Amino acid sequence: MARRHRVLIVGGGFGGLYAAKALRRAPVEVTLLDRKNHHLFSPLLYQVATGALAPSEIAQPLRVVLRRHANTRVLLGEARTIDAEARSVGLADGTQIPYDSLIVATGAHHAYYGNDDWEVHAPGLKTLEDALLMRARILDAFEAAELQTDKASQDAWMSFVIVGAGPTGVELAGALCEIARDALPRDFRTIDTKDARVLLVELTDRVLPTYPRSLSKAAERQLAQLGTTVMTGTRVTKIDAGGVTVAAPDGGEPTRIEAHTVLWAAGVQVSSFGRVLAAATDAPTDRVGRIEVGRDLTISGHPEIFVVGDLASVGWKPDRQVPGVAQGGIQGGQHAARVISARLDGSDVADFSFRDLGELATIGRLRAVADFRRVRFSGMFAWLTWVVVHIFLLIGLENRILVMVRWGWSFLGRGRGSRLITGPPRHSGGDRDDSGPG
Amino acid sequence: MARRHRVLIVGGGFGGLYAAKALRRAPVEVTLLDRKNHHLFSPLLYQVATGALAPSEIAQPLRVVLRRHANTRVLLGEARTIDAEARSVGLADGTQIPYDSLIVATGAHHAYYGNDDWEVHAPGLKTLEDALLMRARILDAFEAAELQTDKASQDAWMSFVIVGAGPTGVELAGALCEIARDALPRDFRTIDTKDARVLLVELTDRVLPTYPRSLSKAAERQLAQLGTTVMTGTRVTKIDAGGVTVAAPDGGEPTRIEAHTVLWAAGVQVSSFGRVLAAATDAPTDRVGRIEVGRDLTISGHPEIFVVGDLASVGWKPDRQVPGVAQGGIQGGQHAARVISARLDGSDVADFSFRDLGELATIGRLRAVADFRRVRFSGMFAWLTWVVVHIFLLIGLENRILVMVRWGWSFLGRGRGSRLITGPPRHSGGDRDDSGPG
Repeated sequence: MARRHRVLIVGGGFGGLYAAKALRRAPVEVTLLDRKNHHLFSPLLYQVATGALAPSEIAQPLRVVLRRHANTRVLLGEARTIDAEARSVGLADGTQIPYDSLIVATGAHHAYYGNDDWEVHAPGLKTLEDALLMRARILDAFEAAELQTDKASQDAWMSFVIVGAGPTGVELAGALCEIARDALPRDFRTIDTKDARVLLVELTDRVLPTYPRSLSKAAERQLAQLGTTVMTGTRVTKIDAGGVTVAAPDGGEPTRIEAHTVLWAAGVQVSSFGRVLAAATDAPTDRVGRIEVGRDLTISGHPEIFVVGDLASVGWKPDRQVPGVAQGGIQGGQHAARVISARLDGSDVADFSFRDLGELATIGRLRAVADFRRVRFSGMFAWLTWVVVHIFLLIGLENRILVMVRWGWSFLGRGRGSRLITGPPRHSGGDRDDSGPG
Repeated sequence: MARRHRVLIVGGGFGGLYAAKALRRAPVEVTLLDRKNHHLFSPLLYQVATGALAPSEIAQPLRVVLRRHANTRVLLGEARTIDAEARSVGLADGTQIPYDSLIVATGAHHAYYGNDDWEVHAPGLKTLEDALLMRARILDAFEAAELQTDKASQDAWMSFVIVGAGPTGVELAGALCEIARDALPRDFRTIDTKDARVLLVELTDRVLPTYPRSLSKAAERQLAQLGTTVMTGTRVTKIDAGGVTVAAPDGGEPTRIEAHTVLWAAGVQVSSFGRVLAAATDAPTDRVGRIEVGRDLTISGHPEIFVVGDLASVGWKPDRQVPGVAQGGIQGGQHAARVISARLDGSDVADFSFRDLGELATIGRLRAVADFRRVRFSGMFAWLTWVVVHIFLLIGLENRILVMVRWGWSFLGRGRGSRLITGPPRHSGGDRDDSGPG
């Protein structure tokens, strides 16, 4: 019997996981490699960061998801090197994994535009660890405010600046306002958490800049109702432990915002394995490092290497690329799997074309904006649509039930079910003698 | 109006929380101080460590629990010093919190009998952070085994040694066997997780040494059915990255166990604030540092300082102390509150007497031992009792519902719902470029 065609998938996000799923019945041997043991449902990551959901409720072990795929094995490890001639990917410990076809879906994460020293003061949101750090910072800020005796430092602890008004920034701002207004007020004695300031800073002239202009307007209105101060047309020029300095994009007089909690929801840079891959294959990349691939999603000169998801730059409309959203990854992964299967049985596959399902963003309880291209709407009906779609897309029936319980509970009680602070506190300066893994 | 009597409670575990609850209607000002923002339901901690429950499901923010206590404020901070003459407790940042009555319930944690270098190889289980570290180690061990090519190193990754066969050790061993036997087998391709070895090492001559002898026998039988190798009468002489060396208590030929995962469920030492308190008040302590208190739970010479829970050494039967279990803390905290209230209104309170409600330990699905003093039983009925009691004792209706969903799901499907590995992996030696808080 001839050796089976080996497909190596690097990355278990939407692109990689859906490629593996689509290869389930193909006559291939699939290896899915990821640094983490779980697939993360990243559209709900901000809910973990704001204490509404627990980490395990939006993540599922890759082994569990792919348990019934007899042709698939899952490896926990980090791709570090690639030998595109020998067709082999190397792990951190030197192990080589040979492939016949390679699907790279290692994604992208947030970037600080060269200001890497901002990261320690303004954490981003890409992994579960990020979300837990953000959750601890937010909750810890209110704890610190409760301990302050002078008004100025209380205010600085009660001020939250979110940088970037894409979907993540907008959803974080909405959730933060709700925490301060609905979930926490009865829990504190010294401070009134309703006094918290939430500032959403955006460089362009509107929130949700990739959405239609009418929905940006609706989102801004809904954010204002919740109490968010929206600062569009504003550039961040400095972030430190005490706060943020902002200015108009064209310069202008800088303004200082005293705030101990700054959350980063801007910028994109590709994963480090993406850079390794681009260098090894001389693949052209765009401004942020995304690898330009053809309409079959392969790198020019390497028909056996597919790039899908956030790491890929794929033409869509004359002037646009496929957006870096879950749908882009899912469809890309499925297409790469189809091309591999078709090559093996000698059939043809049409070029990749992105089927745009629209966009949905929620802005707190009962508020959202939806753009399904043919129909656009906002408000409560958009919010209900958002809830149904996200429950449906979550992986695993148990997680769907748990998330329904959490959401039902917080809808009725306006509480937040997962309000743990883990890791060392920021404000007391004290260490703990049981310091755990943080 | 006269200033209200100020009660400072240090520690939000069972002792501290139930003291605060019992003071709800007393004419006092209560301050509850804890390093963590949550009360932890520690009897279920091993379920987080073994992936059955998520951290937030067994923890509840102290502010939420005490929300309706108008006379109570919660502070997040660490008690570091005490001035027993001036009646003031100092935090890490120097803040002083004055009190009229003080209830110290800072508990105890695991100890390594002077072998502190073992801790890095054999983590203990006292906090949520501990549980997440343990969970990551356990799951990561199977991941590492899947990557090994030689049998010996595969075996070492598939060997788990648990040190100490009290309730925690027994429950961990049972859960580990079930993970290997029921939850994981279909998820791996190279290894058969049923080959995993679980060794439970205990210095005394039986498991659950504080339980009646008949239940120890029942527990050993149930552990053997699940596949645990019980090694009683065995002393650990060395722990390093490669495994454990054991010997008979009286010396004898040492035996080496090759195992990359060692879990510590032995030893007790009091919290560091407990030691500070003992030194400041010259209070007598027992062998492990527990503070000896009178029948009113106060320190001799300091009728205003109460010590409750694991930190206190309280006489019970002629030859026994109140055991360091949840019930001991709850009843101690409630008694201290009663004494304080009685002093304020001039009434009398009887001496503290521990009402022994019995003991319950579960050994995996459908297996448990119960000792309600008048009646002892083991097996499925004990397990059902265990489930009902623990759902009932959990704090918060939402958590009760969530835990019921998790348990129902894993009962039907034999899966484990919270199998995330967070933090850096042990086995690949690779770091991550999105390294979060761990």
